[in-house]
Amino acid sequence: LAIAASLSSAFGPDLCATDPGAIAAACVDAWQLHAGRAASVVRPRSVAEVAAVVGWCASHGVTVVPQGGNTGVMGGAIPDGSGTQVVLCLSRLNRIREIDPVNHTATVEAGCILAQVQAAAADVDRLFPLSFGAEGSCQIGGALATNAGGSNTLRYGNARDLVLGLEVVLADGRVWNGLRKLRKDNTGYDLKQLFLGAEGTLGIITAAVLKLFPKPRSVATVLVALADLDAAPRLLALARDRSGEMLSAFELIPRRSIELVSKHVPGAAMPPAAEQDWFALLEFGGSQPSQALNEQIQSLLEAAFEQGPLVDAAVAASMAQRDAMWRLREGIPDAQLRHGAVVYFDVSVAVSDVPAFIREASAALVRLDASVDINAFGHVGDGNIHFNLLQPAHAAAPEFLARKPAFEDAVFEVVRRLNGSISAEHGVGQAKLAALPGFKSEVELDLMRRIRRAIAQEQLNPGKVVALS
Amino acid sequence: LAIAASLSSAFGPDLCATDPGAIAAACVDAWQLHAGRAASVVRPRSVAEVAAVVGWCASHGVTVVPQGGNTGVMGGAIPDGSGTQVVLCLSRLNRIREIDPVNHTATVEAGCILAQVQAAAADVDRLFPLSFGAEGSCQIGGALATNAGGSNTLRYGNARDLVLGLEVVLADGRVWNGLRKLRKDNTGYDLKQLFLGAEGTLGIITAAVLKLFPKPRSVATVLVALADLDAAPRLLALARDRSGEMLSAFELIPRRSIELVSKHVPGAAMPPAAEQDWFALLEFGGSQPSQALNEQIQSLLEAAFEQGPLVDAAVAASMAQRDAMWRLREGIPDAQLRHGAVVYFDVSVAVSDVPAFIREASAALVRLDASVDINAFGHVGDGNIHFNLLQPAHAAAPEFLARKPAFEDAVFEVVRRLNGSISAEHGVGQAKLAALPGFKSEVELDLMRRIRRAIAQEQLNPGKVVALS
Repeated sequence: LAIAASLSSAFGPDLCATDPGAIAAACVDAWQLHAGRAASVVRPRSVAEVAAVVGWCASHGVTVVPQGGNTGVMGGAIPDGSGTQVVLCLSRLNRIREIDPVNHTATVEAGCILAQVQAAAADVDRLFPLSFGAEGSCQIGGALATNAGGSNTLRYGNARDLVLGLEVVLADGRVWNGLRKLRKDNTGYDLKQLFLGAEGTLGIITAAVLKLFPKPRSVATVLVALADLDAAPRLLALARDRSGEMLSAFELIPRRSIELVSKHVPGAAMPPAAEQDWFALLEFGGSQPSQALNEQIQSLLEAAFEQGPLVDAAVAASMAQRDAMWRLREGIPDAQLRHGAVVYFDVSVAVSDVPAFIREASAALVRLDASVDINAFGHVGDGNIHFNLLQPAHAAAPEFLARKPAFEDAVFEVVRRLNGSISAEHGVGQAKLAALPGFKSEVELDLMRRIRRAIAQEQLNPGKVVALS
Repeated sequence: LAIAASLSSAFGPDLCATDPGAIAAACVDAWQLHAGRAASVVRPRSVAEVAAVVGWCASHGVTVVPQGGNTGVMGGAIPDGSGTQVVLCLSRLNRIREIDPVNHTATVEAGCILAQVQAAAADVDRLFPLSFGAEGSCQIGGALATNAGGSNTLRYGNARDLVLGLEVVLADGRVWNGLRKLRKDNTGYDLKQLFLGAEGTLGIITAAVLKLFPKPRSVATVLVALADLDAAPRLLALARDRSGEMLSAFELIPRRSIELVSKHVPGAAMPPAAEQDWFALLEFGGSQPSQALNEQIQSLLEAAFEQGPLVDAAVAASMAQRDAMWRLREGIPDAQLRHGAVVYFDVSVAVSDVPAFIREASAALVRLDASVDINAFGHVGDGNIHFNLLQPAHAAAPEFLARKPAFEDAVFEVVRRLNGSISAEHGVGQAKLAALPGFKSEVELDLMRRIRRAIAQEQLNPGKVVALS
């Protein structure tokens, strides 16, 4: 309470929420997965105000929790339960500062909604390729701070790869202006990479120079039935070989997902050869005329059919068909929730290890519980599998969710054996803080701690990513 | 001498060169730009030996200078003049540890020659796209430590962008095994980015997991005459718009370069419309059949001709013609040297600022000396200009080279005004250590120093990149 009053007297009521309802709303994420308490919620209108608030907090021994659109699932933007932290919302820093179509860059503030950035790029006939489910409400600053992924990373990379420059408010309130628009700059350490993906623990991203790309002129979307699970990486390799520069998505879909979506999500396309166990959604985009692209994709599909990985394929003949195919893929998370409670895994392995991972993790779970209901889908083009467990009919949700630690032990053991990652795109936040040391060498943890100590101590987002003590 | 004897008794004569000739050879770079002295040159055969030597040096207060193929131009791999440093050569760590064609990765040791990595990728029908003049003798470890660029970065990125995992020996001799083959991994700070481009000051890269790409099936190479300098970014934007996913190189060539190459380099193609002032070399590669690619490029060229940036164009009709076109571009450095002494600038600006940079930097130099002979060419697709000054007929080489500081003041002032970089792809090394503070804010220098202090102090490559005191 003393913190809130001091902050409010220093920065005024417009910046500092004192209404308990407004404070509470910022202390729980959009999915209600994590909740905490905060002394105050501050909404600065400029970089200078962010710097002033962060500087004030540092000199008053108050820790800061930066928050964007609050769509993260790991609790990275949620304060702890002490009620002594300040949540710093970036939503008012929402200007597109500059678009440079010739340089293929956009300079945007952290609080811009991702969809707003996509639209600003489209306005000048360019593409900003970062795209995922929360794009209508997540903010670009949060997407960069968590190194967000999505379905286009196979072609365009993760959020980290889409940044040329950053502006960051440091833990002591100083501002680092690294807003360069350069594609080559070898003058020292690449500082922006420190802050990208650091989940606000090393500094608060206030603006970024983003890479834009040419807009594909023609798109081909294909829904295929695979011969078996091993066919997934084989078809991916063939698709990259035959049309690699145009392949923008390769999503694996199991029959279990088809069943869920057909039951719970209207308007989704159903795949051909529905008796198969595994399906994939492929998308290609390029500068060729549509007909040339379609001919090339047809030739790829014929080769895949002859070589074995492909059983059947449907090519979208209209935008409506394309949308329906994507509704099948994007409807999966919603269909899962309509089915019941979900235990989520967001893991990655080498693309070549995807079948082994799915088989071995499934076998380990079946040994644990023969009734386990697995729904493994996702961005297999990046080796990223959303390996989820669905609530069985015979168990209540709390009972099922209470078994998560046992499920985790089984799945993580396979991830460890295959040298994979237990958080491919969702980050660490507070949810995976405790699990991380089991997957990192002492050398790696020591490097992470040295960096955090050197740059920010635990002034920003303590209790997230890596603990200092 | 005491250091050399202690090292040799600890690690044996096979690892530790004692022959003065062998030591001297490692103390000057391939271009004889920088020279120093060393207590010893150590050639470990394994990561364990690298770790042992580095650990020994740390505990004996001896600093280490890592060295790859010794092709850098900034003196980053050359010891100082004290004769007390140990040069650590990575050349014996030259195994390709694994190639995974399905995952599109190669796991290679630091001492592999870049051309050897390219060949290993080609053997499994894949492309490792990093490519530049020194590829036949530089080592991959050095290329990663300096974040090397080249002519393909427009499409595939710099060396930094081509790495999924690293193995690094730290300053105290510990080994960080970060050799992951993952395309998505959000479990904490991206440590590999710290070591990439750090020029061996934070750790010694001993192995890396590199990204491979599909091999383009068809290639189109085009030599064009531009309407004027402003046409360069306009044509680039049009080429990205019309064939962006296939554009792998966009090199600017001035008439001065054409004159130099035609005089000094046999077998180079000459451009059409040779009376123009500016030319460009474009290359496209893709998965389309050659004929389809050629038709698409033809259509792009017609549009560029109609819209104005293009005056004339020649498309290579054979591999021999393609080679001749590239000889024109790649012959420029050699032709410059045959003409006389050269003052080099390796700068970058936003692509949209390239014409302004060339005009303003040229004007500033002409104000300084009306007889200045400028040859500005390079990777304009990345905003990277090799802005070089040639020795005038009326001045001897030493007299001309002695004026470099005055030339630098004039050029760097323009770089500073356009928020560009004074080292686009060549790094800092020892050559630009003193200039750097003039281009970095105190905040940025402080961040760099904090990182160096936290990770390695000045145990590795002191006197390079950033000074701690």
